[in-house]
Order: sequence, then structure tokens, then C-alpha cells
Amino acid sequence: MIIAVDAHGGDYAPREIVKGAIEAAEEYKVDVGLVGRKSVLQMLVRSHARKSRISIIEANQIIDYREEPFQAVNDKPDSSIVVGTNLVRDGIASSFVSAGNTGAVVVAAFLNLGKIAGVERAAVCAVYGINTANPVLIIDAGVNTDCQPRFLVEFAQLATIFAKEVLGIDSPRVGLLNNGEEETKGNLLTKDSYQLLKETNLNFIGNMEGMELLKGKADVVVTDGFTGNIVIKTIEGVGDTFQDLLRMGHALKVDRDLAGPALVHYVELASTAKQVDYKEVGGACLLGMNGNVVIAHGRSNATAIRNAIYLAYRAARSRLVEAIKDGYCVSK
Amino acid sequence: MIIAVDAHGGDYAPREIVKGAIEAAEEYKVDVGLVGRKSVLQMLVRSHARKSRISIIEANQIIDYREEPFQAVNDKPDSSIVVGTNLVRDGIASSFVSAGNTGAVVVAAFLNLGKIAGVERAAVCAVYGINTANPVLIIDAGVNTDCQPRFLVEFAQLATIFAKEVLGIDSPRVGLLNNGEEETKGNLLTKDSYQLLKETNLNFIGNMEGMELLKGKADVVVTDGFTGNIVIKTIEGVGDTFQDLLRMGHALKVDRDLAGPALVHYVELASTAKQVDYKEVGGACLLGMNGNVVIAHGRSNATAIRNAIYLAYRAARSRLVEAIKDGYCVSK
Repeated sequence: MIIAVDAHGGDYAPREIVKGAIEAAEEYKVDVGLVGRKSVLQMLVRSHARKSRISIIEANQIIDYREEPFQAVNDKPDSSIVVGTNLVRDGIASSFVSAGNTGAVVVAAFLNLGKIAGVERAAVCAVYGINTANPVLIIDAGVNTDCQPRFLVEFAQLATIFAKEVLGIDSPRVGLLNNGEEETKGNLLTKDSYQLLKETNLNFIGNMEGMELLKGKADVVVTDGFTGNIVIKTIEGVGDTFQDLLRMGHALKVDRDLAGPALVHYVELASTAKQVDYKEVGGACLLGMNGNVVIAHGRSNATAIRNAIYLAYRAARSRLVEAIKDGYCVSK
Repeated sequence: MIIAVDAHGGDYAPREIVKGAIEAAEEYKVDVGLVGRKSVLQMLVRSHARKSRISIIEANQIIDYREEPFQAVNDKPDSSIVVGTNLVRDGIASSFVSAGNTGAVVVAAFLNLGKIAGVERAAVCAVYGINTANPVLIIDAGVNTDCQPRFLVEFAQLATIFAKEVLGIDSPRVGLLNNGEEETKGNLLTKDSYQLLKETNLNFIGNMEGMELLKGKADVVVTDGFTGNIVIKTIEGVGDTFQDLLRMGHALKVDRDLAGPALVHYVELASTAKQVDYKEVGGACLLGMNGNVVIAHGRSNATAIRNAIYLAYRAARSRLVEAIKDGYCVSK
């Protein structure tokens, strides 16, 4: 199994991408194919000690994060994003991971992989705390900005299959992100979606408010791609503030001054900050396509890339795409 | 100037409400009228030392937070919420503060105060960090769940007047909450709102993403009431997690173990946690009505109520309603 990784996507590419890929290959015993410019990547890989599971797949064009997605994908057939999705299409790679231009990754996936038959809307599923006891999925985290109620039902179905197959949750609890708990609350979209979700055989537990998002009330939180995108970025923003403080703490060598209960407290604080740290989030899965695609954060460092590769690896190992193909129509 | 306060609204009413009212009266030298059941309030007030600025205004019915707003306001003319809004209508009180059933407060304000002539949609404006150097306003935080682009322009106008008059910001920067920074980003609502906002004489600085919300890029963040409500609750949720940890730290008597840089770090951490702590937020102003109404959080303790009264006091002192009446049509 090879995971293809876009070596030229993200603010810290290619250095941090290569580092994260080597760490992931080592830690998860998985083969990683770095997609990008051969000479640069060879040089970077060479400087690392353990690299037996790393291969390089040549792609000589780069899509910048500012480029218009459709045009970029069309104009750059030899870009790391287009080559990476083609590797999945051709069965050479089991998943593709990119921290590059999100729009371009989505467009390339639509054009090169295509949607699974029966899927009306593919969506981005953000995965929080994949390494914790209670991971939380938020779907759609950004593809479909204007939604119909039936799209939200579809998102719930896709993420339910992900939660079952990839995370091993028996009967994933689905919550609808809303501005109140009562059934009567919501905007036109969520009110109608609530009624549709009730009629499915999903484990729908009702409305969820913003403050309960990451508190484990639901395994799957369903929302439209506009609200979802704003919510995950708001979490990131508040989390950032705490990251800054923790970093500042380290700079001050706080740890040295801590002992006993204060140290325990500090460690727990750092671990909570980690839960809302985008670098630890592990990326987001594009669900509903004929192939695994993981979108990592544009600010990804080596740790973020390692976690995104882990997510891509788990999706591939669980045969997620096949499970969606099999289970999709049945669960409707 | 009297600020009327709903003594029976919120999870910790009436005890914490009375405590907060007495603290606010003392600290801000403002007269506070507690609206509620006389015997209970007299008993509670009696137990406090300094209470010269406190009066009690009788209201013998209570609207529960679970009650359907329209029916409750209709059925309970002697409730603290209805009596409180009537005090503002009749010019006896300058503002009304309630931590009670938000829907009922909004309905009572609509029925008893009415909208300012020319205002199409009143909206809730959440105020973050009113005591800091860089307060941030988020509007609409919950009244209008389904919006037209022109509503968002109106929210921006209302909050701009608030920022100028109450916060003393010369030319408040208005940002549109969106799923990307570029002008072309957004759902149907935000794309059209962007174009309308560009044409106003507001200081519109473009789109803002969720992660920049509280970082001072804009003074006013405009969004629809559905997204706004979810966003403020998401901030609260992430903030809560850190509050829990800080409280736990106190329980462990962490402070005693801290010294030097560690103590500095801890104090700064606590202060950031405060910024996203709903108790410190100071409540939200209902803008566009013929009278000042401040909605405090349902979980309000004495500190939250004190801050909400401070907000109500500042709105009244700045003659906010008159400023909206004067400035509203001009700014269009």
C-alpha cells in the first residue's frame, strides 16, 4: 500500500512535508510516495537517515494556493495535485494527501476520480482527535456552501460509514448543528433537515449547539459546508490563542519551574490545547469520491502531515471507498 | 438613570442576579431596579451591606426558559420580562437586562418597545472584551436565522453606530464572516452581501474567516443570525474547556506552586481564557429597538450580570437609541 503525498502543498513545503512523510512511513510502517520535483525531493530525502519506505514520483508543475482551482487543474496536468489524484485513479496509490490549494485538490478529485455512483454531493469530513478515545467528525467542512436538506442527510450517511469502518464505532451518533436544541429551532435548512434525518435509519440524536461540538455528545456533526467551514476555523482560532500561550510558556522554560500538581495541571492543559490544534487534527477526508483523498491544513508542519498520512492510511486500510460503495444505497 | 434587571432570569436566579446587581451599582455608581417578587428580593437584598442604589420593582410571574416565547409573553403580563421591557417603554428605566428566556425577551421587546422607524430587522450584537483595548462585535448573534443580503448591511450599520457611540471607535472596521478571504468566496448570501456592503459608506474591509474572529482584524463582524449563534457558542465551548482546566488548577492550589516566569505565564493564560469566558463577555445588545435591551447568558453568575449591567449602562449613557434614530437613515 502506497500513500501518495503532495510534496509541494502548504506553507512549509517541501521541507516539512518530506519530514512528516518520513516520520509517518517509519511510525506506521507504510510506503509513502512523495509527488513533486525529483531533484529537490531527492536532496531533501537524502538528508534523512531512515527512508527505506519513501519513493519519489515525478511531477514538475506546482499549483499555488492563490490560483483559481478549475483553471489551475486544467492548465497544469503535470502538477503534484493532478499527478497525485491520478495515482489514486490508476490504483498505484491507495490515498492522496495534500496540504495544497484545497479548491484545486477538490476539483482534481472530481475530474480524475469522480463521485461514487449514487452519491449526489461529496463533502469534506474533518476528523478531530483521531488518536483519542472520542474522535468527532464534522461534515461538510467546506465543499457545499449552499445546501438542500437532502444533502445534509447524505453527509450524515457518508460520515456514518466513515465512523463505522475507519473508527470502529458501532452505531455512530449523528447530531445536527443548530442554533438550539429543540426540534423547532433552526433556519429553513436545518428545520427541514431535522425532519428528513428523523426518517432515516441513522442513529440521529437531534440538534447540537456550538458549545457541545467537541464534547463527545455526537460522533458525527452534520452541517452545511459554509457553516462547517466557519466553525472549524473558529475552533482553530480560539485554539491558536492557547497554542501561542503554551509556546510562550515553553520559551520561558516554564516546565522547569513546575512540579507536583502544577506539572500535572500543565500537562493536561497542553493536552487539551492539542485537541484543538490543527496540527494534531489529522486533516479532513473528502468523502463520496472514487478514491481516498485527505486534505491537510495549509499551515501543516511535519507533525500535521504525519497525522494526515495516518488518516489516509487508516481510510485505505479500512477499504472506506468500497464500504461507501456497498453500504451507501442500503443505508438510504 | 435606572437600569432594570430581570431578577428571575437565568440558571442562578435570583441569588446571583441580586449579587451582580449590587456589585454593579457599587462599582459603576448606577441605580439598579430589580424586577421580580418583592418578598424574595427584599430578603436577598437585606443580606448585603451596600445596597443604597438598589430598588425593587414588583413583578409576580416568572417565564421559564423552556416556555414558548410568544405564548409566555402573552400569558404573563406580570412577568419580570414583560414588566422590565415596559419600564423601558415608559421611560422609567434606561435599559433592561435579562438572563432569562432569550426568545421571550426578544418578543417582549418587539411587542412593548417596537422597532425604530426605518429599521427592517433588529439583531443581537454580541460584545467581546468590552473592558479591553480591542472589543469585537459579532452581529447578528441569533435573531434572524434566514437572512437577505440587505439584512446583513443593516446589521453592519447598527453595529457601526454602536461601535462609534458606545465604544468610541472612530471609523469601525466592518468584516463579513465568510468561508474564505477572497471576494469570490462564500455562499449565495455572503457573495451578494459583499457586493452590497462595498457600495455603502461603511468602513468595509472585506471577508473574515473564523480563525480571525477575535484577533482584532475587524471591530464589527457581520453574519446571519444562524451562523452567528453557532459561532458564539463554539467560542464558548472551546473557552469552557480551558475554564475547566483553570478551575481545576485552582482546586489543586496550583498558584501556590507557581513562581517567577511560570506565574507570569499562568496569569496571562488565565487572562486569555477570560476573553472567551461568557461570564466576562458582558452580554449582547438587542439593536434596532426603541429602547436598550441587554441579553445576558443563561448561565450568568454575579460577575456576568455585573458585566451585562455595565454594558446596559454604557449603551444608555451613550444615548445609543437616539444615535441609531438620528444616524440610521443618513448612513444608508
